[in-house]
Amino acid sequence: MTAALFTALAAEFGPRFSTSQALRDQHGGGEAWHKAAPPDAVIHVHSTEEVASILRQCHAAGVPVIPFGAGTSLEGQLGALKGGISVDLTQMDRVLRVSAQDLDCTVQAGVTREALNTHLRDQGLFFPIDPGANATLGGMAATRASGTNAVRYGTMREVVLSLKVVLPDGQIITTASRARKSSAGYDLTRLFVGSEGTFGIITEVTLRLFGIPQAISAAVCHFDDIDAAVAAATMVTQFGIPVARMELMDRGLIRMVNAASGLSLPEADTLAFEFHGSDAGVAEQAEQVAEIVADCGGKGFEAATDADARNRLWKARHNAWYAVVGTRIGAKGWSSDVCVPVSELAGAVRVARDLLADCPIPAAILGHVGDGNFHVVFALDVTDPAEIAAVKAINAGLVAHAIAVGGTCTGEHGVGTGKIGYLADEYDPAALQLMAALKHAVDPKGIMNPGKILA
Amino acid sequence: MTAALFTALAAEFGPRFSTSQALRDQHGGGEAWHKAAPPDAVIHVHSTEEVASILRQCHAAGVPVIPFGAGTSLEGQLGALKGGISVDLTQMDRVLRVSAQDLDCTVQAGVTREALNTHLRDQGLFFPIDPGANATLGGMAATRASGTNAVRYGTMREVVLSLKVVLPDGQIITTASRARKSSAGYDLTRLFVGSEGTFGIITEVTLRLFGIPQAISAAVCHFDDIDAAVAAATMVTQFGIPVARMELMDRGLIRMVNAASGLSLPEADTLAFEFHGSDAGVAEQAEQVAEIVADCGGKGFEAATDADARNRLWKARHNAWYAVVGTRIGAKGWSSDVCVPVSELAGAVRVARDLLADCPIPAAILGHVGDGNFHVVFALDVTDPAEIAAVKAINAGLVAHAIAVGGTCTGEHGVGTGKIGYLADEYDPAALQLMAALKHAVDPKGIMNPGKILA
Repeated sequence: MTAALFTALAAEFGPRFSTSQALRDQHGGGEAWHKAAPPDAVIHVHSTEEVASILRQCHAAGVPVIPFGAGTSLEGQLGALKGGISVDLTQMDRVLRVSAQDLDCTVQAGVTREALNTHLRDQGLFFPIDPGANATLGGMAATRASGTNAVRYGTMREVVLSLKVVLPDGQIITTASRARKSSAGYDLTRLFVGSEGTFGIITEVTLRLFGIPQAISAAVCHFDDIDAAVAAATMVTQFGIPVARMELMDRGLIRMVNAASGLSLPEADTLAFEFHGSDAGVAEQAEQVAEIVADCGGKGFEAATDADARNRLWKARHNAWYAVVGTRIGAKGWSSDVCVPVSELAGAVRVARDLLADCPIPAAILGHVGDGNFHVVFALDVTDPAEIAAVKAINAGLVAHAIAVGGTCTGEHGVGTGKIGYLADEYDPAALQLMAALKHAVDPKGIMNPGKILA
Repeated sequence: MTAALFTALAAEFGPRFSTSQALRDQHGGGEAWHKAAPPDAVIHVHSTEEVASILRQCHAAGVPVIPFGAGTSLEGQLGALKGGISVDLTQMDRVLRVSAQDLDCTVQAGVTREALNTHLRDQGLFFPIDPGANATLGGMAATRASGTNAVRYGTMREVVLSLKVVLPDGQIITTASRARKSSAGYDLTRLFVGSEGTFGIITEVTLRLFGIPQAISAAVCHFDDIDAAVAAATMVTQFGIPVARMELMDRGLIRMVNAASGLSLPEADTLAFEFHGSDAGVAEQAEQVAEIVADCGGKGFEAATDADARNRLWKARHNAWYAVVGTRIGAKGWSSDVCVPVSELAGAVRVARDLLADCPIPAAILGHVGDGNFHVVFALDVTDPAEIAAVKAINAGLVAHAIAVGGTCTGEHGVGTGKIGYLADEYDPAALQLMAALKHAVDPKGIMNPGKILA
């Protein structure tokens, strides 16, 4: 069956169908420590109809399909655990439509967030969701990604208006109209956002956009200890100050970021802010935050509107993952991803510090603290089982505490294979059974990205 | 089977189980024109466990169950089309938890939006979602409701953090943690938001809250014609001015509202605004809007911070439905509910005016124009088939145009029975099949609110 399928697909896609070992290896894993599991073949697609053709044939043959974007996922979402075909969407990279009037756009799934923003810049618009990596918008929708701007602009859950999706049997659907809001039946858009390729393949994404603010300023300030930094961040959130970004970086990370990005930030536990609004609004926000920061013992707060300095700062922040992983030759990254109610953030970060106290593996704490979401990023020697076990234990401790205080095991990285075990701690058994029933309803043959999200 | 079930439920719930005709009639219909279909019995529940007990028994017996909140739905969501039991949640009216630190709360499903805001007021918090009626929060979640503040604060889709739900077989689940964001598996929360009681019964709702803004001001201005008013509203949206409310009322509605609420607004096509923020921010927004309004020929714009006048204005706006329906003795209301991309709003309102040109039935146009959502509300003589046919034709014309320009047949009222026919115009056949597959997966026996959303 598979041989006939591969012959047919090879004929249909020519050189865009490949079984080369290098390509398969590259498509079998993400950016993190999880062991890669190469697919049997890779196809670079150019259209929704091509995806539909592949799925029709794979559905008939019962062959697994794994959608592939930028390959930057962090929880083992890309491994071909049961073999099958990796459908690479990176060549579907056209921005199909931008409406400045409606503040929305439609892009093919392979457009990256940076490419979209480059495309938008001269129209005075931007797209705010920004995971560290330059991910594709299809992948970001599939992972329910967020990033540094989520505290102000939301996550992929909020900004996706509609999706074009190829269902497991090859049928093509549009999940919703372009209207800003709708009560027209079940929320198919949110069904696919965060489904990590297990329900079908997203081929087009319709997104909300935002006007580039009239004024933007940034500020960095440092603290004697991380508790004081978290306290300041929590207070900013609770006062409802509409910061666009509020990021925590511990002193270890600052050292690594300085080294990796050629910056010279003071090596201290740090909060970085960005303010969006009118000239007056931005000044007002900065003033309010300055006062809170000072009350919490923060130092060196200074709002700066210089775009170059600001861009360097955020570029360094986006590259934090690479800065940590780069501290150790041959290391792989591992990131925890808990998210807790804001009132529990200080406690959760203390738990992280306690768990890290005797950890010899290079690690840094950073986070989107306005959302209660933070990461511990490790640079891991994956050839050392003791290191893997140590990080696993720390991760488990972080997750157990987060769930105990009303939080989640993953704020933005998704489940993949890495978090499957924790879902049983986070959800009622009946809720997991419901998820399994949904999976069975949408993909009864189980061909879509098998072994992810649910065991 | 049913007789035994009723005997058991009567024993279990005592006087809270009722088959009185008056109670059944009251529970078989909503506020609009749709013909009521009384259930066979009504049960007033006090706890999630009681709901679970009812569903376990009804599931075993194959008896339909219809959840009931304030009874204010507008698309025939409440009719017991196949008989069965109406589960009235209005006595589950406790606010269970408020966290000012986390800006969230958990309420029982029967708490109304006004009761919640009364409860919150002395903590400096408020809950923004405000359909015209004083609906219950369970009902609002089930309908994916919104209202006048959605342009700034989102809809029930955005502000529900988590739900407690009793599944059709009586199992109880919590759909998500309290974390602001999560990528932990399928989005069960958004599965139930907007499912109109067809997937289970929502018994508790965890909601985002917001701090009462430091400053609030309101403004009303009037225009020579409705096109100019819509043009001004569209421009305000496209400039990204973060208005909290921006409501359109046509001159006919102003006349009815003045009469019903004792106001003396000038009888002209009107935009009403509310601005939230700091003192400076509110003043700045009002200034920017004033300029746009003046450019579009608007008159009489004046921002006012007087809370009493503001409350009278918004109370009158919330009662618009009753003002229209009250113009005609014995009339029933019918509201259209299209929502279109903002760039299409002016065209859609022109279509509405053309369709209304020769309509002898009292009608008014009003809308949440920042979202592209507007209503035509009719005061209908339901004993006259010609009137029903005339309004049906106008509604169909509005929906056809909205869908043709990328909009939806319902922005906030839901599908119920009233919009089922239009879903086939709005969605691909495969998308509707997918919705049906979801329904079958969650409620294989089809006992939950049968005949709603899907045919």
